[in-house]
Amino acid sequence: MTQSMQPGRSSVANLQPSLIRKLGNLSPGLTDIIPLWYGEPDQSTPEFIRNAAIESLQAGQTFYQPNLGIPALRQALADYTNGLYQTQFGPENIVVTSSGLVALAVASQCAVNHGDTIVTHAPMWPNLPSIQEVLGANVVRVPLQMESGIWQLDLDRLFAACTPETTMMLINSPSNPTGWMLTDDEQQTILDFCRQRGLWLIADEVYNRIVYDRLYAPSFADKINQDDRVLIVNSFSKSWAMTGWRLGWLTIPRRMQTIFEMLVEYNFSCVLEPVQRAGIVAVQEGEPFIAKSVARYQRARDYLLEQLASFPRITCQKPEATFYSWLAIEGMTDSFAFAEQALLETKVGLAPGIAFGPEGEGHIRICFATEIDLIEQAIERLKPMLL
Amino acid sequence: MTQSMQPGRSSVANLQPSLIRKLGNLSPGLTDIIPLWYGEPDQSTPEFIRNAAIESLQAGQTFYQPNLGIPALRQALADYTNGLYQTQFGPENIVVTSSGLVALAVASQCAVNHGDTIVTHAPMWPNLPSIQEVLGANVVRVPLQMESGIWQLDLDRLFAACTPETTMMLINSPSNPTGWMLTDDEQQTILDFCRQRGLWLIADEVYNRIVYDRLYAPSFADKINQDDRVLIVNSFSKSWAMTGWRLGWLTIPRRMQTIFEMLVEYNFSCVLEPVQRAGIVAVQEGEPFIAKSVARYQRARDYLLEQLASFPRITCQKPEATFYSWLAIEGMTDSFAFAEQALLETKVGLAPGIAFGPEGEGHIRICFATEIDLIEQAIERLKPMLL
Repeated sequence: MTQSMQPGRSSVANLQPSLIRKLGNLSPGLTDIIPLWYGEPDQSTPEFIRNAAIESLQAGQTFYQPNLGIPALRQALADYTNGLYQTQFGPENIVVTSSGLVALAVASQCAVNHGDTIVTHAPMWPNLPSIQEVLGANVVRVPLQMESGIWQLDLDRLFAACTPETTMMLINSPSNPTGWMLTDDEQQTILDFCRQRGLWLIADEVYNRIVYDRLYAPSFADKINQDDRVLIVNSFSKSWAMTGWRLGWLTIPRRMQTIFEMLVEYNFSCVLEPVQRAGIVAVQEGEPFIAKSVARYQRARDYLLEQLASFPRITCQKPEATFYSWLAIEGMTDSFAFAEQALLETKVGLAPGIAFGPEGEGHIRICFATEIDLIEQAIERLKPMLL
Repeated sequence: MTQSMQPGRSSVANLQPSLIRKLGNLSPGLTDIIPLWYGEPDQSTPEFIRNAAIESLQAGQTFYQPNLGIPALRQALADYTNGLYQTQFGPENIVVTSSGLVALAVASQCAVNHGDTIVTHAPMWPNLPSIQEVLGANVVRVPLQMESGIWQLDLDRLFAACTPETTMMLINSPSNPTGWMLTDDEQQTILDFCRQRGLWLIADEVYNRIVYDRLYAPSFADKINQDDRVLIVNSFSKSWAMTGWRLGWLTIPRRMQTIFEMLVEYNFSCVLEPVQRAGIVAVQEGEPFIAKSVARYQRARDYLLEQLASFPRITCQKPEATFYSWLAIEGMTDSFAFAEQALLETKVGLAPGIAFGPEGEGHIRICFATEIDLIEQAIERLKPMLL
């Protein structure tokens, strides 16, 4: 008997593949691709960070570790956060996770009940809503609006989307894919609203160090207290070019340690010690690397935007944060087909706007965390499609 | 306003902490503990496996990887499985996961709908049912029975526990904590039943190489075909002493690749390449290590059982598999209190039977994947409590 291979879980049966991954799956066999599609710097993790993991492996540190992370990394992350935001977190506020994505999944498992409604903004990294859907939540998306060439989130509209069934708000600022960023005042207004309505707030702040006119992005970290049901997601991926490592962390109210100890135990148990040791070195000695990287991304951004300005079909805000530019291309109505054509005909990997939800159609995301000569080549190759 | 810190997710609010972890949390500050509580060999991962990860880190392999695993590891795992079981799996049947636990969680997300009932046996590693509970499933536990000094699972009783609401069966053989193991015939009977009833079957086979009278334990791998809704969970933790690495894999029907690509993308995305490179070396060159380890565990097992035989209060089957001995201690009615006393008064870490469910009360689990002189010391320390 041939059985159906449909998943038993209805929310999983309805999942859609990540269209960025789907496009990426077309690439094996293609050579000489210029990869501007994934949200990943083009360089390996700095050697001084890799060396910390190597030393730990050499020392045989291959055993199970505490659920919430090794104490030295939890302390280092509390110190790092306090240094940036003048906060007073302790290691009891930190949960080490096996990526920012896993931090988000575990936080959502804590906050979101089956059948709950959660409110978020869009376009958005597809994994954020998909995680909620796997958990059986309904996701309401409030579109960002372009006003006078600047992305804005209309907070009144965001709050109006919250019904009695809403139990959580999910905010990603600085935002992938738009580079949009909340102000401190807007964050305070959102936090006040969540407090008043008793909503959970999950804040994905993984781009908080990839920001161009200041040292760090506004964060909920310096606005919350230990009684707020706010869970802040962060990651080593972007700030320290550690995408492949799968290392992230959550900032939680200290009274939730026991809950998160269980959630970690039943989700991933712990993170490899050599990876955590690399994390300690990254947060303690990584500031020069961040400064150098951000300056490099800024040069790449400015070069890219200058080049794109010569194409009348393209509209693009200069992103204040993240390493993405988010292009509206006039007359392009099928961004997946456009990105597929770009890949197959010009061997430039672009992320199609539709990957970030229906609000993203008509757009293309370019990751500019790369060398300028590659961007130059990419533009040259894409020129016939952009004219 | 002080808000409740209760999780929003009701199934999470009802979770119980792992009692092994809870006991472990009493240990900081204690020195000179003999740790027989966790399911972990006492030695670091072999150097030749660590070296593969070190070389990969030195080569800067720190980027995102394909969801389902790097092709070389998927091929190596298919080859390894085919070599053991004379099966014909290909890389398309393999999903690399960030631990056996994560493999189990992802498989469960695929198979289990909110509100479903799943049937399993007990006592059992607590994480297995807890994962199901997080997903909103009800878990029905069928107790193993001791008959003529041998653990048995009454299959009629197992099948009778399956109602129309049952959608999945969860089997862990060889079993943690009892060391009990299904025969090939029993596996075939279970598979036939699941086929007939259209049930999913998740088989946790992470102890399939820790077995004492043969090279590998019976597996569902050589009984299924590509149309069976059977997901086999395995891990590098036990066979290659890689507990801390968080590396595991699933064997899936090839038509489910797309589903698992999404589930991996939305759960953990990928595994660090240096960890995957270590995995390749482990499966390709790790047989002598497995043979040596199993011989060492067998000596430890035989020594331990010989020592325990002198305590009339203790009843204990000689485990055919796993590195656990599962002791019934006459007159002991609170295994957590017993383990706590053992820890605080004798500094021996034991896993309390109640950690494996109510069926485990009256028992203690000892992990004997350790040196004989440590077992000797542990028995000496525990003697007053065992007499």
